[in-house]
Amino acid sequence: MSYYFKCISCKKEYSKDEVEYFCPTCGDRMGTLEILYDYQNIKISKNQFSKSNNIWQFESLLPLDKDDYKTHLHVGGTPLYKFSNFKGLNQVMIKNDGSNPTASFKDRATAVAVAKAIGKKYEAIFCASTGNAASSLAGLTAGTPLKSYIFVPAKAPIAKISQLFAYGSTVIPIDGTYDEAFDISLTVGVKNGWYCRNSAYNPFLLEGKKTCALEIAVQCDWEIPDVIVVPVGDGTVISSFYKGFYDLNKVGAIDKIPKIIGVQARNSNSIKIAFDKGEPFEAHDIDDSSTVADSISVCKPRDVIKACTYMKACGGEFIEVEDDEIIESSLEMAKSTGVFGEPAGATSFAGLKKLIENNKLSGTEKVCLVVSGNGLKDIKSIEKHVNITPVVPDVEKVLEYIKSRV
Amino acid sequence: MSYYFKCISCKKEYSKDEVEYFCPTCGDRMGTLEILYDYQNIKISKNQFSKSNNIWQFESLLPLDKDDYKTHLHVGGTPLYKFSNFKGLNQVMIKNDGSNPTASFKDRATAVAVAKAIGKKYEAIFCASTGNAASSLAGLTAGTPLKSYIFVPAKAPIAKISQLFAYGSTVIPIDGTYDEAFDISLTVGVKNGWYCRNSAYNPFLLEGKKTCALEIAVQCDWEIPDVIVVPVGDGTVISSFYKGFYDLNKVGAIDKIPKIIGVQARNSNSIKIAFDKGEPFEAHDIDDSSTVADSISVCKPRDVIKACTYMKACGGEFIEVEDDEIIESSLEMAKSTGVFGEPAGATSFAGLKKLIENNKLSGTEKVCLVVSGNGLKDIKSIEKHVNITPVVPDVEKVLEYIKSRV
Repeated sequence: MSYYFKCISCKKEYSKDEVEYFCPTCGDRMGTLEILYDYQNIKISKNQFSKSNNIWQFESLLPLDKDDYKTHLHVGGTPLYKFSNFKGLNQVMIKNDGSNPTASFKDRATAVAVAKAIGKKYEAIFCASTGNAASSLAGLTAGTPLKSYIFVPAKAPIAKISQLFAYGSTVIPIDGTYDEAFDISLTVGVKNGWYCRNSAYNPFLLEGKKTCALEIAVQCDWEIPDVIVVPVGDGTVISSFYKGFYDLNKVGAIDKIPKIIGVQARNSNSIKIAFDKGEPFEAHDIDDSSTVADSISVCKPRDVIKACTYMKACGGEFIEVEDDEIIESSLEMAKSTGVFGEPAGATSFAGLKKLIENNKLSGTEKVCLVVSGNGLKDIKSIEKHVNITPVVPDVEKVLEYIKSRV
Repeated sequence: MSYYFKCISCKKEYSKDEVEYFCPTCGDRMGTLEILYDYQNIKISKNQFSKSNNIWQFESLLPLDKDDYKTHLHVGGTPLYKFSNFKGLNQVMIKNDGSNPTASFKDRATAVAVAKAIGKKYEAIFCASTGNAASSLAGLTAGTPLKSYIFVPAKAPIAKISQLFAYGSTVIPIDGTYDEAFDISLTVGVKNGWYCRNSAYNPFLLEGKKTCALEIAVQCDWEIPDVIVVPVGDGTVISSFYKGFYDLNKVGAIDKIPKIIGVQARNSNSIKIAFDKGEPFEAHDIDDSSTVADSISVCKPRDVIKACTYMKACGGEFIEVEDDEIIESSLEMAKSTGVFGEPAGATSFAGLKKLIENNKLSGTEKVCLVVSGNGLKDIKSIEKHVNITPVVPDVEKVLEYIKSRV
């Protein structure tokens, strides 16, 4: 579909061949770009979409060009589970994005990054990450002609690095901090002419992420939820939900944009701080964003302006939760719904509990929680809650043990 | 659908209310039961099935009764990826069952076990396992009225036990071997009146597993593959593929049953030994079945007779692969296809390589590999293949490092 760019700060518009990543006037942080379409010429029919097809079914709402590559992996089409009379609410839905090919929401963004990198004739793509973006890039470049280079702090957990090796990425373990790995990745990546997979830097990635909102609309038979609860790190994911519903609204498929609630970990709450201070929205950096929800731990979030602007437009807000609330929520969600999320993924469930606790919901709203990553990615975070007291294989002893557990 | 039981050994038939788990004449090992249908009264239309719906779309070919419970989780509908001109073959397909809710093929069996347990008014269900059956049972009972009791050797890896806790199962860590945990689970389970989720013991589970074969037929537009390659432990999974295609053939949906190749790890090859000895098929137990592919490590396989009988019927066979071939295959598969399987899951890929090496394929066959579990379940197995030599964040040093890796 025909598309163009618009700077989120200065509002200047650019044609698709004029810029690559950001607004040259406002720079790489304040000048993140939106991708917009010639909406009146987009014709979609609600019946054309399936509830479990992959993201490419939304091609007419994506910024794809002729040579762009569509991954063979089944990205998107993740389940939306509906629970009635749940925690005192009429209906709670869980969008389980942990069932993507590399087990996180990030595959949606990577699919479009890889499409563009191959379409634009790049030979390689890079990112700096130890988390879901890295495993996603490694997985979605596997079996393609595109080489992937992933910069990681050498001290990252071996389990996370192993997955990247498995997929055949070139892993560059930097003897330094994450920020040092990030900076050197940009220098080396640009010098070598590689494509950049950094979601708040490369505007195409948000368009991949927005497919989750499009799917929710389809899976709800176009009766979209009233409230969407989303874990928030650097602000791109939550922005993508607004953008997905915005696009659907612009093409006449839905008549409202739901209220979107962003949930941050208390120690990594810089977007909440920026939003609560009010306009003009300004980046607020923090020194130590350590949280058990490592996938949303960010000191210097890149998509502050976009996230705050969009949340204001939909009447949304940001709330924060403690680490122990996140872990407790991960366990409660797994137990009560069968959906096991990594801590960042379960942060939306913690947000739901906070909203209920603070009487922010009337109970009649349809609420949708986004679970952005699979619990198998971070089993360690719950290990300390596990109590193993061995019992000898004797019937009486075992029956006693079971009784003591009920 | 109306169904009945038939003993795989003495061929005696039982109505559905006559027996629960096995043939009372032949006992719990030799007397495993088949579930058969009144095939001439089953009417299916090929168009009624979708390529990504969950297993309940196959209800007309499943032994469900009125009160049986259908899990809300999206079990089945896993992707089938097709690769042309792959490793010298015209077409290779990968059925990625690692994308099930708890990341393994076992969810198909558990879904039917849980359906039956609730339908038969049991209050609890149990199994002895540290592997995929356990996490599957924990995940699929979460959010249901059914309590789950899982017997594990107390020395099992904490990561595997943690997942069971997360889902809220009662975990009983037995101070003993796996076999001791298994035996005490049966004694205690029966004493307490719990339902048994043991796939070669409870005949319903194979019916759940067969849905993978049904999906492959649908996803191939009913042009079924010529060869199916399946990892083999206790023989139930491979039997389920035969049974799925058998049922489709009986109702007239397909006109042949593909050749099914079972792949065992060299140290856990008892079914291969039994099959190669020939009829009458007899169980062959081994003392130490240790293999890196722990999900198919079995000393005393339970479904020997069924697996051997079925493989003879379809012209199939069993082959064996070494542990280092399995790990190498796991890495090669991830790198070349983007599908990351646990070692047992990637054993089918190792089998494919062995078939090619031994000139067992002409190259014109359509070959389908079954990947039964997600690589995230066992990252440890590839950690030793990962080489991390830190490099300082200096452009020249990093460029040098990258050059050395290409």
